[in-house]
Amino acid sequence: MVDEAMITEVCPRDGFQNLEDFIETPIKIEIIEGLIQAGFQKIQLTSFVSPRAVPQMRDAGEISGYFVKKYPHISFTALVPNLFGAKAAYESGIREISYVISASEKHNLANVRRSVKESLEELENIKENFGALRIKVDIATAFGCPFEGYLPVQRVEELIHALLAMGVDEIYLADTIGVANPKQVQEMMTYLKAVFPTVDFGFHMHDTRGMGLANILTLLKMGYGKFESAAGGLGGCPFAPGAAGNVASEDLVNMLDSMGVKTRIILKELLKTDRIIEEKVKANLTSHMSKITSFMTGEIQ
Amino acid sequence: MVDEAMITEVCPRDGFQNLEDFIETPIKIEIIEGLIQAGFQKIQLTSFVSPRAVPQMRDAGEISGYFVKKYPHISFTALVPNLFGAKAAYESGIREISYVISASEKHNLANVRRSVKESLEELENIKENFGALRIKVDIATAFGCPFEGYLPVQRVEELIHALLAMGVDEIYLADTIGVANPKQVQEMMTYLKAVFPTVDFGFHMHDTRGMGLANILTLLKMGYGKFESAAGGLGGCPFAPGAAGNVASEDLVNMLDSMGVKTRIILKELLKTDRIIEEKVKANLTSHMSKITSFMTGEIQ
Repeated sequence: MVDEAMITEVCPRDGFQNLEDFIETPIKIEIIEGLIQAGFQKIQLTSFVSPRAVPQMRDAGEISGYFVKKYPHISFTALVPNLFGAKAAYESGIREISYVISASEKHNLANVRRSVKESLEELENIKENFGALRIKVDIATAFGCPFEGYLPVQRVEELIHALLAMGVDEIYLADTIGVANPKQVQEMMTYLKAVFPTVDFGFHMHDTRGMGLANILTLLKMGYGKFESAAGGLGGCPFAPGAAGNVASEDLVNMLDSMGVKTRIILKELLKTDRIIEEKVKANLTSHMSKITSFMTGEIQ
Repeated sequence: MVDEAMITEVCPRDGFQNLEDFIETPIKIEIIEGLIQAGFQKIQLTSFVSPRAVPQMRDAGEISGYFVKKYPHISFTALVPNLFGAKAAYESGIREISYVISASEKHNLANVRRSVKESLEELENIKENFGALRIKVDIATAFGCPFEGYLPVQRVEELIHALLAMGVDEIYLADTIGVANPKQVQEMMTYLKAVFPTVDFGFHMHDTRGMGLANILTLLKMGYGKFESAAGGLGGCPFAPGAAGNVASEDLVNMLDSMGVKTRIILKELLKTDRIIEEKVKANLTSHMSKITSFMTGEIQ
């Protein structure tokens, strides 16, 4: 069991990318400021993708430039699908990117219109051209694919071998459509831990079927402590049918707080940011903690 | 880890009792028929309380009589707050009751307007007068009280001693306001398991803070396999501020199915019953599984 967890807040990217109405840049900034006040040390700000494909993210450069300058000690990251995006991110001051490759060929094709092999080649390209960029890779559909079902763990293993050989800085396993269950997580990670004992995997779990926290509990007990989550439980993959929200940051922080696992996040401040998101963004918060109407005596200071 | 679980469906009582608009008896019957089709072997049908206090349950006798007669092999139970309710339940053909006592004095007073001692005396009364009734006691606020916060486990322990001395048939521990966390559950049940190694406790967990399934996972691993849950995730205690829905039966069944824990419940049928509840009862389903718009290849047969 870990006694400390590192939570990356991904709402500004994963939570917002699916929303149709453009959220004005000052509102995004206000929300991200709220997340910083809540204590997040790592925030995924945006994605550098084609504004035609994802118009919500068309202010990626502006948002990134603003925060990278204002808070040099906070780690701001961005999603980047290709060399072009990596260049734009780099030029906006971003020094750490997330790059997504799916364990499933079919999902990778649907998500980034490339084969897994082509995705790896593009990543090689990015590495060669932007050596100063820290690269985190998300392995999407690692726990199940909408098109291919549960995948053999060997598919994930092969991809990890390829990524480590390439020298990426960090690997996150993503349950893109929220189908992982605690037994599977336990078995899969027991296998991967034996093959890659020194790799400190991170996890990006969705709560589509309500098992997000149960899966994270399983991972905490196995010694893993790096997670991505989204304020309000917003999010979902536009190219994965049935994908619903990310694990909600406030639900995760509340569970960790109550279990005595340190996070450095101030739950009360995070709940305030929920209110801003609720008021100013047309989105239904799906988290539990954002709906609590009454707290237990002494529950939250 | 258990390999089989016994789920009691409590939606017709705990799920409906808070709803203002009276659900017509034929609609209740249709929903309960759906739950029977889904395979539940134990259903909490209603509560025998004052129709003035809880008008929603005013057809308790009719509902009970109907089902007890029609399905003699299914275990139908009812909530009963006092001797008067026990008599009415017995006369309607009910042979198993749930009787609630809170671990917290303040909650017991708010819930049933009695001290814990008075509740025990009333239970003694019921036992003496209705020896043929199987008695299950729910210990409410066992994991935390809205008024008194987290209680020392010794309070729960004392109550269990008193109940066992009285010869009750079964004890369920209830997280009435959904504040339990996996660490607390683990510690508390490790303690209680040592004191009461032969007692097969059941659990009634709420999902107010999203930790319902994580807590149940912890209990499954400790060898406990009896749970109460409500279709749609409906429910909440009218006399406990901030109490939200029960753990949703479909979310629980889905987790257990995916982990290979047998339940005898057919998820697909249960999801059909969700649709009936959604259409005919003015209630927002809060479960995850009732909102899934797309399943993974091969996920549900």
